[in-house]
Amino acid sequence: MPVSPLARPFPDLPAIAGARIATARAGYKAWARDDLLLIAFDPGTTVAGLTTRSRCPSPEVETCRRHLPSGEARALVVNAGNSNAFTGAAGAAACAAQVAEVALLLACRPEAVYPASTGVIGVPLPADRAVAGVRTAHARLGSGDWRAAARAIGTTDTFEKAALREALIGQTRVRLVGFVKGSGMIAPDMATMLAFIVTDASVAPGFLQQALDRANAASFSCITVDGDTSTSDTCLAFATARAGHAPLTGWDSPGADAFAFALLDLCRELALLVVRDGEGARKLIEVRVTGAVSDESARRIAMSIANSPLVKTAIAGGDANWGRVVMAVGKAGEPAERDRLAIRFGGVTVAADGAVVPGYDEAPVAAHLAGEEVEVEVDLGLGDGRATVFTCDLTEGYIRINADYRS
Amino acid sequence: MPVSPLARPFPDLPAIAGARIATARAGYKAWARDDLLLIAFDPGTTVAGLTTRSRCPSPEVETCRRHLPSGEARALVVNAGNSNAFTGAAGAAACAAQVAEVALLLACRPEAVYPASTGVIGVPLPADRAVAGVRTAHARLGSGDWRAAARAIGTTDTFEKAALREALIGQTRVRLVGFVKGSGMIAPDMATMLAFIVTDASVAPGFLQQALDRANAASFSCITVDGDTSTSDTCLAFATARAGHAPLTGWDSPGADAFAFALLDLCRELALLVVRDGEGARKLIEVRVTGAVSDESARRIAMSIANSPLVKTAIAGGDANWGRVVMAVGKAGEPAERDRLAIRFGGVTVAADGAVVPGYDEAPVAAHLAGEEVEVEVDLGLGDGRATVFTCDLTEGYIRINADYRS
Repeated sequence: MPVSPLARPFPDLPAIAGARIATARAGYKAWARDDLLLIAFDPGTTVAGLTTRSRCPSPEVETCRRHLPSGEARALVVNAGNSNAFTGAAGAAACAAQVAEVALLLACRPEAVYPASTGVIGVPLPADRAVAGVRTAHARLGSGDWRAAARAIGTTDTFEKAALREALIGQTRVRLVGFVKGSGMIAPDMATMLAFIVTDASVAPGFLQQALDRANAASFSCITVDGDTSTSDTCLAFATARAGHAPLTGWDSPGADAFAFALLDLCRELALLVVRDGEGARKLIEVRVTGAVSDESARRIAMSIANSPLVKTAIAGGDANWGRVVMAVGKAGEPAERDRLAIRFGGVTVAADGAVVPGYDEAPVAAHLAGEEVEVEVDLGLGDGRATVFTCDLTEGYIRINADYRS
Repeated sequence: MPVSPLARPFPDLPAIAGARIATARAGYKAWARDDLLLIAFDPGTTVAGLTTRSRCPSPEVETCRRHLPSGEARALVVNAGNSNAFTGAAGAAACAAQVAEVALLLACRPEAVYPASTGVIGVPLPADRAVAGVRTAHARLGSGDWRAAARAIGTTDTFEKAALREALIGQTRVRLVGFVKGSGMIAPDMATMLAFIVTDASVAPGFLQQALDRANAASFSCITVDGDTSTSDTCLAFATARAGHAPLTGWDSPGADAFAFALLDLCRELALLVVRDGEGARKLIEVRVTGAVSDESARRIAMSIANSPLVKTAIAGGDANWGRVVMAVGKAGEPAERDRLAIRFGGVTVAADGAVVPGYDEAPVAAHLAGEEVEVEVDLGLGDGRATVFTCDLTEGYIRINADYRS
């Protein structure tokens, strides 16, 4: 697949003290690329995370859930090309074997190792390759190449997705590096497919979790590519505590707000990068809903619009088809009154009070829709609830990618 | 667009005593085809109906809702190419003008006229064409051509969709003719896009409504093309009472069960025809869910599978991607246990107890998926809840049709 037209250049990223990186080719598919990532963390690294709400999670997701309460991390290991989901006892054993091997190599407890896998569902992860892969990677651990890391965890991704934020905690500048993969089965339900954040800040795990929850609610939970929630959604944040400031233990800690904002802003950029690499995407769509009876109601309506195949195909065709936006509002099951509804594309009011505006001129709207970034705004005129959701258009590329993905 | 490969031949349909039919070219779009249907019913005709749950219904839908409580019908008028939804006062006035013109021509109360419109949302129905169209049609009223009627109400439909059922009420044979249009924005929420049933049976409106509710629950409410619920969904059943039997007034009336079954069976055939003409459809997919905690839970899981773009594109590609079925079960938000899940394609068990079956042979499954009719079965192993839902695959044809529908 060609690189998404919505791709962004890969940023310059610093090494994060306390994190060593390596990639390797485990060979989960017949491809000539690295498909295993290992990051080793110094002792004292804390961790927080979110995983999918799917009722059919992978053993990797279940392992992360078991390990997270300790708040400690010594390693992250990621496999690409095989999600190991729905693979029964064989898959669980392969996951455990890989985690045990990492623990052996790093001389740490297995409970400090966080695994993640992404790719085809239903085929057990080959334990021999998973174990051999971490051995190869371990021998290469170094200050590392984030771009290689981002590339190694990708599947149908067409470009590497990462971002950097900094925050001042007292006099100490801390850095947060995040990287993420998409790019189908993206309707994160508490966390996106796979997103990892590494910071040198010193953050108690409880507060790291709170900050991550808040960041997630305004980032990964506000995007959708295809309305399909993965069995493997995992978002993990690691804090190596090497920056040297006093630990952040709660919202009252000096610098806590700055850190939390940087984390949120980082997650928003990562989430948008996922949408920019949505399968077949040619346009980035921002759906803003205001005037709903509550924020949650606004979010449901925004998601109904963002997941509507008819809205997404219309935008793919550059068609300001506000009628389909009306349809998506109407089907959302949330309070809405047709005759109070207003719709804007790119800031231009197309419809108000339940009908197209008098003398509506489609030319500026068509020009907006011809661009790569499209804004759809709906005001319900009922209350103060608001939400913003990001998605991409639905094109023939999505069909082509997914009609023969396994083969 | 070429005719759907899943098309069915148009059946031989008899005239229904008490119903006179005509079509006309109102010219709602720049096309050389009839786009207006008028059916006049004899006095004494009863009616029942269901309309969309969309919060943004068209004035036609609102008009039907206002008229239905009387239980009496003298006319049905349908416009194709313009749904008249979200058109404010101008659209409501156009609808009222057309209804008034029909009432004038047939010398009946406006409350006995049932209007429906389908097509682009957001453009007011041109009242002059709507009124001129019914005048032309009225002059042509006759025993009529159901195929012309089915053709006149279509939009992106690629073939005419109708069916016939008969029932014995005492010694009297009654006939039910139904016709329906699709074929996008199909996720009926209590009624499909536009479905009309005409019978010569004598049925009290209250019982006709009960029988229609029951039929709908097992037909139109069990199909989805794209998960997008129309603003114009309307299903109306008209009973002209010309067959001459004692009226059916409730479930205890002799022949009531036979009539209700014929109505249900007719609605199921019509609903399947809608799926067979789903935009871009190349395969008809039956999703059967058993072992859920309740029928409603089973239905939600079946709909989650049937609406998943990843499941639908996999089937379009002939790919037995059971992992995506697992994903769709997992995201449905309903009780499910990964390790009790079993999945079958075309009767062949692919996965059981949370993993692929030992020695799984994909060849017979691939052969089944190469056909035009695909069966997906999921057993949750939790309870007795079951549901069956029909959908079609998601192909590049859907994208092509919808990326530039308005133009």
